[in-house]
Formats: sequence, C-alpha cells, structure tokens
Amino acid sequence: MIIILKQHADQAAVNALRAELEAMGLSIHESMGEQEHILGLVGDTKAVSESWVLASPAVEQVRRISEPYKKANRKFHPADTVIQIGATKIGGGNFAVIAGPCSVESPDQICLVAEEVKKSGASLLRGGAFKPRTSPYAFQGMRAEGLELLRHAREKTGMPIVTEIMNTEHIPLFEDVDLIQVGARNMQNFELLRAVGRLNKPVLLKRGLSATLEEFVMSAEYIMAEGNEQVILCERGIRTFETSMRNTLDISAVPMLKRMSHLPVVIDPSHAAGINWMVEPLAQAAVAAGADGLMIEVHNDPARAKCDGAQSLTPAQFQALMEKIGPEAAFFGKTMN
Amino acid sequence: MIIILKQHADQAAVNALRAELEAMGLSIHESMGEQEHILGLVGDTKAVSESWVLASPAVEQVRRISEPYKKANRKFHPADTVIQIGATKIGGGNFAVIAGPCSVESPDQICLVAEEVKKSGASLLRGGAFKPRTSPYAFQGMRAEGLELLRHAREKTGMPIVTEIMNTEHIPLFEDVDLIQVGARNMQNFELLRAVGRLNKPVLLKRGLSATLEEFVMSAEYIMAEGNEQVILCERGIRTFETSMRNTLDISAVPMLKRMSHLPVVIDPSHAAGINWMVEPLAQAAVAAGADGLMIEVHNDPARAKCDGAQSLTPAQFQALMEKIGPEAAFFGKTMN
Amino acid sequence: MIIILKQHADQAAVNALRAELEAMGLSIHESMGEQEHILGLVGDTKAVSESWVLASPAVEQVRRISEPYKKANRKFHPADTVIQIGATKIGGGNFAVIAGPCSVESPDQICLVAEEVKKSGASLLRGGAFKPRTSPYAFQGMRAEGLELLRHAREKTGMPIVTEIMNTEHIPLFEDVDLIQVGARNMQNFELLRAVGRLNKPVLLKRGLSATLEEFVMSAEYIMAEGNEQVILCERGIRTFETSMRNTLDISAVPMLKRMSHLPVVIDPSHAAGINWMVEPLAQAAVAAGADGLMIEVHNDPARAKCDGAQSLTPAQFQALMEKIGPEAAFFGKTMN
Amino acid sequence: MIIILKQHADQAAVNALRAELEAMGLSIHESMGEQEHILGLVGDTKAVSESWVLASPAVEQVRRISEPYKKANRKFHPADTVIQIGATKIGGGNFAVIAGPCSVESPDQICLVAEEVKKSGASLLRGGAFKPRTSPYAFQGMRAEGLELLRHAREKTGMPIVTEIMNTEHIPLFEDVDLIQVGARNMQNFELLRAVGRLNKPVLLKRGLSATLEEFVMSAEYIMAEGNEQVILCERGIRTFETSMRNTLDISAVPMLKRMSHLPVVIDPSHAAGINWMVEPLAQAAVAAGADGLMIEVHNDPARAKCDGAQSLTPAQFQALMEKIGPEAAFFGKTMN
Repeated sequence: MIIILKQHADQAAVNALRAELEAMGLSIHESMGEQEHILGLVGDTKAVSESWVLASPAVEQVRRISEPYKKANRKFHPADTVIQIGATKIGGGNFAVIAGPCSVESPDQICLVAEEVKKSGASLLRGGAFKPRTSPYAFQGMRAEGLELLRHAREKTGMPIVTEIMNTEHIPLFEDVDLIQVGARNMQNFELLRAVGRLNKPVLLKRGLSATLEEFVMSAEYIMAEGNEQVILCERGIRTFETSMRNTLDISAVPMLKRMSHLPVVIDPSHAAGINWMVEPLAQAAVAAGADGLMIEVHNDPARAKCDGAQSLTPAQFQALMEKIGPEAAFFGKTMN
Repeated sequence: MIIILKQHADQAAVNALRAELEAMGLSIHESMGEQEHILGLVGDTKAVSESWVLASPAVEQVRRISEPYKKANRKFHPADTVIQIGATKIGGGNFAVIAGPCSVESPDQICLVAEEVKKSGASLLRGGAFKPRTSPYAFQGMRAEGLELLRHAREKTGMPIVTEIMNTEHIPLFEDVDLIQVGARNMQNFELLRAVGRLNKPVLLKRGLSATLEEFVMSAEYIMAEGNEQVILCERGIRTFETSMRNTLDISAVPMLKRMSHLPVVIDPSHAAGINWMVEPLAQAAVAAGADGLMIEVHNDPARAKCDGAQSLTPAQFQALMEKIGPEAAFFGKTMN
Repeated sequence: MIIILKQHADQAAVNALRAELEAMGLSIHESMGEQEHILGLVGDTKAVSESWVLASPAVEQVRRISEPYKKANRKFHPADTVIQIGATKIGGGNFAVIAGPCSVESPDQICLVAEEVKKSGASLLRGGAFKPRTSPYAFQGMRAEGLELLRHAREKTGMPIVTEIMNTEHIPLFEDVDLIQVGARNMQNFELLRAVGRLNKPVLLKRGLSATLEEFVMSAEYIMAEGNEQVILCERGIRTFETSMRNTLDISAVPMLKRMSHLPVVIDPSHAAGINWMVEPLAQAAVAAGADGLMIEVHNDPARAKCDGAQSLTPAQFQALMEKIGPEAAFFGKTMN
Repeated sequence: MIIILKQHADQAAVNALRAELEAMGLSIHESMGEQEHILGLVGDTKAVSESWVLASPAVEQVRRISEPYKKANRKFHPADTVIQIGATKIGGGNFAVIAGPCSVESPDQICLVAEEVKKSGASLLRGGAFKPRTSPYAFQGMRAEGLELLRHAREKTGMPIVTEIMNTEHIPLFEDVDLIQVGARNMQNFELLRAVGRLNKPVLLKRGLSATLEEFVMSAEYIMAEGNEQVILCERGIRTFETSMRNTLDISAVPMLKRMSHLPVVIDPSHAAGINWMVEPLAQAAVAAGADGLMIEVHNDPARAKCDGAQSLTPAQFQALMEKIGPEAAFFGKTMN
C-alpha cells in the first residue's frame, strides 16, 4: 500500500499515522521528494482499510498495490481451480453446461425438463425452489417442496442439482444440494456468504448487478476465508443505462476474472439478455472469451413459465444451441463435461 | 396493464393468452386498429408479471399502467405517513436527525458521541454493531456486544437507537432496538424484509446501490405486505461512473419517492459523498429538496475510526452543521424533532 | 404510437390533442376501457416526439410501437448491407480487420505498421491524424500532415485508409480518405453527421460512451437521411461503474444492432478494454457474437506511442491474434476480406 | 505524478522510461522499498499522459497527484471567478437565473416568454435556435432566423441572450450573442471548444451525459487554454440506470466542482428531471448546495412546445418558482442578479 501524504502535512499527524501503522506490525518505507511525500507499507495490508487511511488529516491519497484478496488470488495459486460436482468438472479446460427452468413448478415439469436438457448435453440441472422476486405479490417459489422435487429429478436422471439459497436459516434444507447458488441480490449478504463458507460443498456465486469485479472476488474471498474453496464465479449481466435488454453482459469479466483469480468462471446469458433469441450469440461469445461453463434457462412451455419465461429456451431451442456450443467448445480446446 | 400484441400474431396464441388471463380473474378489453392490436386488462394485475406476459409468442410489448405496489402507494394513501420513534416524529412536516458513529467501538466512544450529538440537536443515535464490510478481513463490528453498548448509551442519554440488522437469525437480538435499519446491500434480501415485516417496529430501509426507485418502493412493499407499515426510506447515494466521490447522491429521489409513496424519506449524505467536507452542502440540499430527515456519521476521532473515518464529522463539525440545518429546516417549514 | 391518457383526463385537452394529431395527417383509433383510455395513431409517426405528446395535460404515458428510424431499420431492408471499401467487403458474411496505430506519428512509423498489419491479414489501415484528447495539453495529432502520411502509406501498401474527422470544416481534407470515422465523442455532433451524410463515401460511426443502441442507430439514420447509406456501426465499449478496465465492451450490442438494423457491425476491442492483453479474448468473443469486423490498435513500439500505448498490440502480438481470428471467422462461416 | 513499477521490472525498460521522462524536462525521485519501486516525477506533468506511461512494460500503475488542469484549477486561482454578462453577474456570491423556451418558435412566442420571465426575475433569456435532436426527423430549430428573433427579443426587453452553438462554422452568426452555450452532446467536441476559446465572450459549458467531473473541467480547460477564461459550468443531469426521470441530477457536482475550480456553477433542473413538477424541488436543492445560478425552461404553452414541453414551466409556474428562489437565495447569502 502506498500512502501519498498532503503537501505540508502536519508533522504530528504524520507521526500519529506512522505509529498506528507500525502498531499493526507493518514496516514503513518513507520517501520524500520535492513535490511528493510517500509512505510505502511493507507487510500484510489486507486488513488495512483505505477509508481508514484516508481519514487521517495527513493523507492526500492511498493506493493499494497488492490486491485485498488472498485465497482467491491467482498470484498465490497460479493453476486453475477445477471444481468437481458428481462426475462433472468445471475449470482448467473442463467446460460444463447447467440448464433447467427458472423455477421448479411441478414434479412433471422438472423431470421433463431435466430429461430433455440431459439428452442435449447439459450435465447439471438448475431449478429455483426459493425465488427472489422484486414483488411480494409474485410467485415466490415452491420452497422446501421445490427442493424435494429437485431431488426427485436427480434420482430419475442422475443429474446433480443446482439451486439458490436465500437465507442462512435454510441451510439444513440444502444439505444434499450438489451446487448451492448464491444469487446476485445476495452477493453482499455477508452472513450468508460466511454460512456457505462453512459448508463442504461447491458454491456458485453470482455477481451483483452493480458489483465491481474486485467486490465480486472479495465476496468469493468471504466464502473461502471460512474454509470452503470450491467457488464458481458467475457473471450474469450488469446494470447499465441501456434499456433494450434486461442487463448488459460484461463479457470482459471473463478474461479479467481469470487473471485476478484461479476460480472457474461461468456465464449466464439468460439473465444477461432477458430475451430468448439473444441467448445463443451471448453463449457463443462466452465460450470464445474463455468461460468455463454456461448456465441456461430452459422451460418446456415458456409462455406458461411462472417466472422468466421471456428469457427461457424451449427444449428444442436448447438442443439447437448445444449443437453449436459443443463444436465451439472443442474448437477452443475445451473438454465438454 | 396494456398488452400490445404482435402484428399478425397467431390467433391460437392470442386465444391461449386471453384464456389464461381470464382464468386469473381479469377481464379484457380488446382493441384492434390498423397498426396495433391491444389487450387492456381490467382487475388487480399486481401479481401479473411482465416477464410472464412477454413470454407469450403473441406479445410484442407490455406496459403496466397501475403501479405494482399498493400499501406504499400514495394514490391509495394520500396523506404523509408520520413515524414515531420515542418522542421523535419523522414525516408529515416533522424533520429529525439521526447521528452517531459508523460502528460502535467501545463504551466510552459510543456514550461520548451520543452525548455530543444529542447536545447538537440529533434526536436518534445511530451506531453499527453488525457491519457489512467488503472485505472478510476488515473489522466486522462488535456484534451482540455492540448492541449492548448501544442500549447503555440509550440509557445514559435517552436517545432512541438505530442499528443495522444483517440476518434473520439475529432478530431476537434486535427486540428492543428502536429503529431497525436494513442496509443497502440487503435491500433485496427478501427473507430479511419479510422477517422485519412481521415485527411491530419502525424500519429504516436503505436504497440499494443500483436499485431503481420502483424496486426500492417494492422492497418497502415487502415489509408492509407482512403487516409492518412503519417504513422510512433512506437514499444514500447510487453507483455511477463518477469516481471523485464514493457514490452519487440522487437528490431527485426525494421528490420522486414522495410522489410515488406516502412514506417518509431520509437522506444519508455521509455515505453518498464518502468525504466529510461534502456532508454539509449535501445535507443542505436534502432539506431544500424536501427530505424528512438526515442520517449523519459522527465520530469523536475520525482518524482512528474503525470504519468510514473519511466521511465522519467530528462532534464540532456536526455542531456547526446543525447550526445551519436547524434554521434551514425552519425556513422550509419543517418542525425539528 | 400508443398514447395512454390519464384517468379522468379533461375532455377539452383530449380534443385539443386529437385535433393536433389529425392536423399532422395521422388517423386515430380510440379505445376506452374501464381502466384505460388509449389513442392508437395510424400513419407516419417518425416526426412525432414523445416529449411533445407527454407535454399534453391529458397524457399519462406514450409508447412508440414502430421504431423512430426507417432507413437503418432492418424491417424495411431485411438483407444485410454489404459495404465495399476498395477490394474489401464488410457485412453479409464478409469479415474484415481494420488495424493500425492510434495516431500517425511519422512517415516511417505509419508505413512500417501498415506493412506489418497487411502481412498479418488486416485489409484496412487505421491511423489518427486529428486526435480528440481529453486534455488540451496532450498530443493533438499531426492533423493535415498526418492525412498526408496516411495517403503515402496507402500508396506503398495498397491498403485503404480509415481516419477520424472531428469538424465539418475539415471535410475538404478528407476527400480521398476511403472510410471516414466519426468518433464516439462526436456520435451526437449532428452537424457533422449531416455533413458526412452528404458525402458519397463509407462512414464508420462509433457508439458514444453512454449512448443507448436506439440513439446509436438514430445517429446512423442522420447520416442516411442525407443520402449516404454506407454506414458501419462500431461498438467500442460503454461507460459503466467498473474501474478495472477503460470501458465495458457491450457484446450484446452485436446481436441487438443486427436485429434492429441491416448495417454492418464492427467491434473495437482495443478501446473497449484499454489493456493490450485483453484485446485477444474480446476480439474472439466479437467474432463468436456475429460481428462483421474488428478495429484494432497496433503500434511498432507501444511504450513510445503518442497515445493509447497501453492498449496497442505490437506487430507480433497482432500476428498472433490474426492466426486465431482467421480460423475462428471460418469456423463461424465468415469470409475473411 | 507517481509511477509504481512492476515488481522485478526489467532494468533496461526502467532505464528507457527514465530517459524519456528526463528528456521531457522532468526530474525523477526514485524510491525502492521491499515491496514497491516508485518513481516520483518533479516538474510540469500536465502533458504526460497516463496511458503513455502505462504502456511501458516496466509500469504497474500510475497515479497523478497534481490535477491535469491548470487555468481552471482553484489551487492556482483561489478566488471565485465572477462572470459578467451585461449587467448580470454570476459567481462569487452573485446568483442569476437564465430562463426561456427550449426553442425559439416565432417572434411572438420568444418576446412573450422573454417579457414574462423578466417580470418574474430572470436576468438572462435562453432560447434554442440550433437544436441538437436525437432524430433527424424532429424539429431542428429555426437556426439563423431563430438567432434573429432572439436579438429582437433582447431589443424589446433588454435581456442578454443565451443560445447554443453546434458547429464552428456558425461562429460568425454568434458574434453578438451574449452568452454562448456549448451543449452536453458537444462537451468533448474539442474543435468547437477551441473555437469558442478564441472568442472574447462568456461560454456556458454543459456537462456531458456521462462525463466525469474531471473530464468536464478538462473541457473548460480547453476553452481557457485558448485564452477565453469566461467559462460557466452547467450540470444538467447525468445518465444512470434510473428510468423514472430523464436524467439523474448530480447535486454533489456543485460542491465538488467548486472545490476543483474557481469557475461559477449553474444547475439546469429542467433537463435533469425532464418533468415540470420536479423543477422546483431540484432548483431549491441547487441553491442550497451552493450553485451560482439556474437555467430553466419556460414556455407559454408547453403542450404545444416544439421540444421539451414535458419539462417546461408555464410563465405562472415560473413566477411561483421565483417567489421561492428569491428568498432562498437570500437565506443562503446570495445576491440575486
């Protein structure tokens, strides 16, 4: 961390700052030029908050050189992390597709969709049981019963299941879920992050609608700091001024996250676009940009889906998509899982 | 709700849509012009999701005419809601200032700040016990012990206390908190919203960093739909491209929220700016725009604050601010509480 | 255009609005339900501004059904437009790469880079002569002399040249430029758009940093409305809250623009990322998303480039990129030009 | 400027960078700690571009300490600039209101509005002659004839006139305009900025829809660098994700711009909100935040205005607004001009 002091900073304030930093176990390299006066901190600055430094009356600016994340940091873990869920691997050259309906609606619906997406090459089954909805009057998911139906679909198809947790109190219900999803709206629900961090189970963490990439990785770090290092990062579109789509897919997040971190990166083109015909080109772009997987909404009857019908593919559309994604993944040297 | 059908929409798809809408108890007014074909829905459309309608292959666009919120809606409740916390009223011409440190750090600190801000005219004491921090390595608050210290400060000063809840499991700890805060990062933590909605206690709901005003009011509606109508809306800056400030204060939110809803609106200039010298002009702007209150961070020693020191006022700076806010509130016809 | 009137709108105001709309030659289809009162306009509403309609005291909302652009609209021109510049075609399955330095710096530099990028497979040479710079103290380009050097490089290599125009007064200087670029900062410099619209020469129009896709197409429409239909749309990153990159590449713009319009769409990954190592994955994503071409900054000595060195590729890096882009374009069924 | 070198940077690259910096006349203060290696530049770094420094293979980060603007910088010019237009002063405690229609439509219209707004206390008359419109099919203004009508209104009322220039070629037409406006869409039309910088006439510069405050001040610097130091900065709302308003007023821009620069700052609440009923609270907030003036759209018949009717006040509404603004400006110690 580099601290740039104010020109003509009060010497007592500088001394006070130095003393506090040294009390934290940091050593200080001071450099004074004609126009600048700088303190370079040596040691572990992860816990030193920039806003705390800025509050000193002696400080003009502060600049972190080392990243504030450690367990998620590629610098300390150069090899790609590969996460295994059942027989499926994600990361390190392994590419996997998660597919299924926005929400579990009935035993028939979830089993039917599960069979269809499996046939087309998806390896993990998604389905919402607890649904975060903007309106309290909208369908809130089948909750515990939905989890039951997911388990049933897993039994019938052998596909591992992926579903979203919304509250720490529900953790007992998620014990045998294969991949627990933390949704975009809960990306900074730190109590929830810590709770899933204490599980021994892969977590799919979605990026918040306006989270910077550093904040996103810091949320993964929350989970990892508790001991659970099986985190998959999922970009699902950010909020911008553009109104013709639901969100704006941040495709650059793929290479940037992979440079920052060793964790696998998955793209959700369904939520990014919010429109079914746009899923295919965005999925193709994701593969080309280096993503490790896709998460795609498929519904047997989108016009009757209880949520997100407009962005859901029919099983036939999903089949057509997978016929393109398979060869493309191979073209880019990925192994389909 | 107005549904604009596609030109040359398939008649079977139109009929299917009509049948499902009628099965929901809605009646339909159909209008077919040369260039447009429209269905106008009559009845309670609160639970009809736009994305569900859009998923029909017959639909081009959908447009909600009536707002999706009801309990928070000024149309159905024209008079300003006034919320009372102890002897303090907020809303309906009553103006109140909430002040205190970002986080509770010690018995002396919280009592000292409480006494100082009370002397200057604040009527409610804020202080974080559970702290949402971007980094897992940063100070996370004194948690239950912090709540204890707040209660102690309340006893000594008589000031009602305001503090943030981060998880439904902590609700028992918040039983005698006077005003429960739901933070910006939890604005769409719907399980938490529902839980505080079942309490009989005022809630201060902060706007998410990239929440639209409609989403913000919908989150208040979540709380109100459970029976708790004592919600205060708090604008605290939104995330934009601007980098010279921590966030961008959306001052227009004040008149717009007051037109949409009857709930009181409070401004937090400390988080909006992230810089202490900017708190005063933003607080003054908030009063002029019609806000019902302010929430301001004050610390006895900002340079040593465990969080948000850069945006905290000293007690003396807060005193100077209040000497301006008092007369300004009077100028704008507000009663200081 | 659908006009939703206010409930209980004053009848005189409704009549006045109807009379004015009819005076514009529009016919009106009125529909009155229990909860809504709607006017559907029949006729050419391109010139009817939404803000004008909204200003009527009788109007609640207005919704355009038909797009406000006509010449750029795919609905009226279903086939892809193919633009030919010298021997190079862009659009309709033809893929082309524009490459060269951010700015022309010397005869040797531009000729050297031109020869290098040609060898690697670029078909058009870019180079800035007039440079829009945030600071008045930064290098502003070689201006007319830079154009001279570009012509010289064209003579030596046979590559058509692409360069940016910043002012209508410079048009005579651009007479023999092969593809005139209108930069992001001038996307809504309407006088300039009109001026290049009166030329018989292809125009590369860059999207403004915060322009919606509809505004972007409307700027193309400005050029086309003057008679020049040879417009290439170029997405180059939009401004968001993310700070780890210069801009955020809006990859969804490719499929969306191609649905809205028949014009070719080109991606500039250099400006989108602002970082050289990110150019390759973004270029690959662009091809996969369906772009018709790429615009890439290449400099013989990026560390000494007078502008945008951080995002420039060396000729060797560009060569390596082209060895990936060529097969990828073929994989996606495009013909390299 | 502080340059943070990469750990283990290649010594030859460091030497090359040092040599080039020294060749620019800068002296270098080098500082090497255990974890950081820093070059501090001493001398005038205004012309040293950050992207140029970043392009060196030895560089990790670069951080400007001194601002890149000089003439607009409050540090070198601590006193407020006061700009005089006719008898009206703006800045340094002087507050002025600019009012008038979005566009000049007829001799009667502009004279009528001029008389009305003058009566209510406006001191400058605005009116668009050249109109930047998103659509080429929308009304483009009366152009030269509109300027003629503004002159006529000035003759009849004595009010100085404010109107927008869109192109350098129109400068001769603006010779006797009292305050030339450069619009938001042309904030980075650098050729236009330079051209008005060579005039001896006040310029009202509007902030671009997604311009950072530093970019905004840099555009003022463009004008000032040519010799014209009479620049008024105008914040008119920025583009965000919020959809209930046309733009989001950045009220924090007022104190921040006044800290960065000595130039007067004016707020345009009409464009910020895009809705007439919101003009009043935003105008009041602007006064409280420390603005030096307001720019307000007034039309005799908003429902028939050729542009921006939805955000225009009637003369009676403007009169009511001014009855609030006058006392408020006095309350905040401003002198109405």
